[in-house]
Amino acid sequence: MRARARALIESGWFERAIIAVIVINALGLGLETSPAVMARFGGVIAALDSIAIAIFTVEIGLKLFAYGWRFFRNGWNVFDFVIVAVALVPASQKFSVLRALRILRALRLISVVPSMRKVIVGLFSAIPSIITVIIMLLLIFYISAVMATKLFGAAFPEWFGTLGASLYSLFQIMTLESWSMGIVRPVMAEFPYAWVFFVTFILITSFIVLNLFIGVIVNAMSEATDEEAHSEREMILTELRELKAEMRALRGGTP
Amino acid sequence: MRARARALIESGWFERAIIAVIVINALGLGLETSPAVMARFGGVIAALDSIAIAIFTVEIGLKLFAYGWRFFRNGWNVFDFVIVAVALVPASQKFSVLRALRILRALRLISVVPSMRKVIVGLFSAIPSIITVIIMLLLIFYISAVMATKLFGAAFPEWFGTLGASLYSLFQIMTLESWSMGIVRPVMAEFPYAWVFFVTFILITSFIVLNLFIGVIVNAMSEATDEEAHSEREMILTELRELKAEMRALRGGTP
Amino acid sequence: MRARARALIESGWFERAIIAVIVINALGLGLETSPAVMARFGGVIAALDSIAIAIFTVEIGLKLFAYGWRFFRNGWNVFDFVIVAVALVPASQKFSVLRALRILRALRLISVVPSMRKVIVGLFSAIPSIITVIIMLLLIFYISAVMATKLFGAAFPEWFGTLGASLYSLFQIMTLESWSMGIVRPVMAEFPYAWVFFVTFILITSFIVLNLFIGVIVNAMSEATDEEAHSEREMILTELRELKAEMRALRGGTP
Amino acid sequence: MRARARALIESGWFERAIIAVIVINALGLGLETSPAVMARFGGVIAALDSIAIAIFTVEIGLKLFAYGWRFFRNGWNVFDFVIVAVALVPASQKFSVLRALRILRALRLISVVPSMRKVIVGLFSAIPSIITVIIMLLLIFYISAVMATKLFGAAFPEWFGTLGASLYSLFQIMTLESWSMGIVRPVMAEFPYAWVFFVTFILITSFIVLNLFIGVIVNAMSEATDEEAHSEREMILTELRELKAEMRALRGGTP
Repeated sequence: MRARARALIESGWFERAIIAVIVINALGLGLETSPAVMARFGGVIAALDSIAIAIFTVEIGLKLFAYGWRFFRNGWNVFDFVIVAVALVPASQKFSVLRALRILRALRLISVVPSMRKVIVGLFSAIPSIITVIIMLLLIFYISAVMATKLFGAAFPEWFGTLGASLYSLFQIMTLESWSMGIVRPVMAEFPYAWVFFVTFILITSFIVLNLFIGVIVNAMSEATDEEAHSEREMILTELRELKAEMRALRGGTP
Repeated sequence: MRARARALIESGWFERAIIAVIVINALGLGLETSPAVMARFGGVIAALDSIAIAIFTVEIGLKLFAYGWRFFRNGWNVFDFVIVAVALVPASQKFSVLRALRILRALRLISVVPSMRKVIVGLFSAIPSIITVIIMLLLIFYISAVMATKLFGAAFPEWFGTLGASLYSLFQIMTLESWSMGIVRPVMAEFPYAWVFFVTFILITSFIVLNLFIGVIVNAMSEATDEEAHSEREMILTELRELKAEMRALRGGTP
Repeated sequence: MRARARALIESGWFERAIIAVIVINALGLGLETSPAVMARFGGVIAALDSIAIAIFTVEIGLKLFAYGWRFFRNGWNVFDFVIVAVALVPASQKFSVLRALRILRALRLISVVPSMRKVIVGLFSAIPSIITVIIMLLLIFYISAVMATKLFGAAFPEWFGTLGASLYSLFQIMTLESWSMGIVRPVMAEFPYAWVFFVTFILITSFIVLNLFIGVIVNAMSEATDEEAHSEREMILTELRELKAEMRALRGGTP
Repeated sequence: MRARARALIESGWFERAIIAVIVINALGLGLETSPAVMARFGGVIAALDSIAIAIFTVEIGLKLFAYGWRFFRNGWNVFDFVIVAVALVPASQKFSVLRALRILRALRLISVVPSMRKVIVGLFSAIPSIITVIIMLLLIFYISAVMATKLFGAAFPEWFGTLGASLYSLFQIMTLESWSMGIVRPVMAEFPYAWVFFVTFILITSFIVLNLFIGVIVNAMSEATDEEAHSEREMILTELRELKAEMRALRGGTP
């Protein structure tokens, strides 16, 4: 029984069918945003949604049955399980946020299509090489937010009133959105030397983000371009060693 | 006859003449934007435009005659054909959009000049390696647009009222234009936790776009820098194999 | 005594204890930004801060005792010394800036955690290769600021009234923040040809910044990706030389 | 005489003296922007400026005498000549633009300091590999500007009234400054489908600029990182060929 369930799950048409259900479900949830469509086809769309959830539940159930507890060893399975489980939580009209989150089901496309899974795995594989830089960025953010709150919090409560407000405003400044006209020039009207703080912050975070990017680029490059060159050098080494072996045989054989 | 037409089309001066006509035509269409120039030289410019279209029509006709149906096997020819065919559609004064599109004829410069053609081919050659990342970006956009419409659509109809409006607003946010001062701060006045959604969106799309860039860069790099190194390694391998052959001959010759 | 102090300082648990004190101290200084927390736990937080400073002072004292004057040969030690020394300066309520600077102590995390230290060293190692480009950027900034002050200073004193104001405004323009709608379009209303100056400035600084980035990237790349390839080529060379030596031995041994 | 002039010009202390004059002159021109300084030291600064111009004139004269017409074969000399010649044009108070341009003399620092000269030469060396992409960018700009003028010129004369206005607005849009809130949303209020034009424009120009960057990066990389690897491979090849020669000698010597 388990073997048959596994064969079914791992067959190509099953995967394609699940992809189709995900896409149709995502389109249906997209159509829900149009009041005109909902007024005419609301019932059909709701029914399609229920059918999709039913299919996903059966799919996860089948996988659980086929693989047992090993099912949860695979991160993608856990991801699928959580998304489908959330869908089964009864969402009353009040919890509009939960209803809006239903579209996250479309993310299952990533866990189902192998090439997308590979991209995500690639992204995560870059993290170890940049984790230190990320922590440094967070540290700089925290330090700057504490300083901004203490220096400008009293005068500009909307932007720097609390640690959270400062963190958000500094994130905005890091993205360079309205940093000068919107925030720093008004602050400078009160604190003429505020530019020292903000220009320093922009320069430091830009440099750290540049290093983040370089970390990711170098990681991707060394994986991508070096493989061929590496295998060619391996071939050269193999040839050389064979040559050496022959040379030894020659020396051993000619005395 | 066909052979002579082909020889004519493929001759250097024919190509240069067509380039000249394209450039003159483009300049003429540019001058049309100046009312002062049109008032004095409107007739000349319109006549030049008609002459250019006539020349293009003859050119395409010649190519069709010379190559027959094979003409359409080349994407650049199809591109030229469509652009010239559109120019022949009678555009009344009403269809001002069609009239504005006439300047697209200047794009023929790309299909005629080989070095530009190569750049475009290079761009397209990078697409297969990034198509998965592009699809993921579109998926994230779609999911975010559906969520934004459901969460903020009712309160901010101008920005998130429909799926289309949300897609446009999210594109603006991805380019970081006025994302905070213009959109997210007003939204946060109503929904204090909206920053979770928007900051997450910015971080995810930035990371995906970075991956798009890296895909294109890695593609370009591995093509550009590796060629020489690869040929050098090939030379080393050839030398090594020759050496080995000689070694074998030596062993065979000395027993 | 000195040897024992040194053993203590260099032990793993001492390092981890100092990291813990830094983190706790940073969190405490962060909590200080919340009036609600300060009202209830102000005394505890102030006490924790004093304890942290005491621990840091003892730590630096121990290191000074253990290493003597060699302590100051290490840049990181100097960094730690300055930060702790500043904390000991009596800061009255008036010097709110000095009080805000106390959070800079959290930067000690970088000097204590080896992997972060390495990132910073990496950043500094890139500087020699880009120092010329940085000086050129500063030169372009200075020249542009003098020109902007002389050309637009009288008409727009807020943006270009003094050399300092011009430098700040040009930094804002370089980051592309509100450069056109906020600054250049108003200036163009008075000086129609102002766009020549500003567009040139944007193009030149963008190109220089691009070169800065490339300098850092090339630096990082050549360090990261080439090491493996280099060692492989070294191996090939070693093998080749051994082969040659054997060849020589063969020629010498067979006559 | 000429030989002695040449020896003088090419001596290290002469170069350093000229650098000093350039720097002092640049600082003086910077101080001119401060009314307070000019009120007290205006005479001194004006005198310093005249002395600097005199020194530059003598310097160029010496070089002209020393090298004759070959002086103009070096682009940097032409650059120096033009800058100093412009300074000699009598600038009345009216030509404030000419007076503001005097600070451009500080650019001579680049032509005098060898390491800066190298950076500029490096920048120019990248141009051939990106010239096609630059022409394509200009073509896209021209086509888009003509279209924008014809489509939106009548309704938004300030932004798209003339070809020049459109080019400037499109440059602003390419830098993403206020593109949506400032320009495209107001335009969309009149032409609901305007986003098709602008979003396409942003995507195409971003992609072309990305290719510009990649061209420069690939150029810099292949120069920087490959040199060492290339010389190592050369060494391997040399070793191999020597080995082969010895092998031949062996075969020839053992029959």
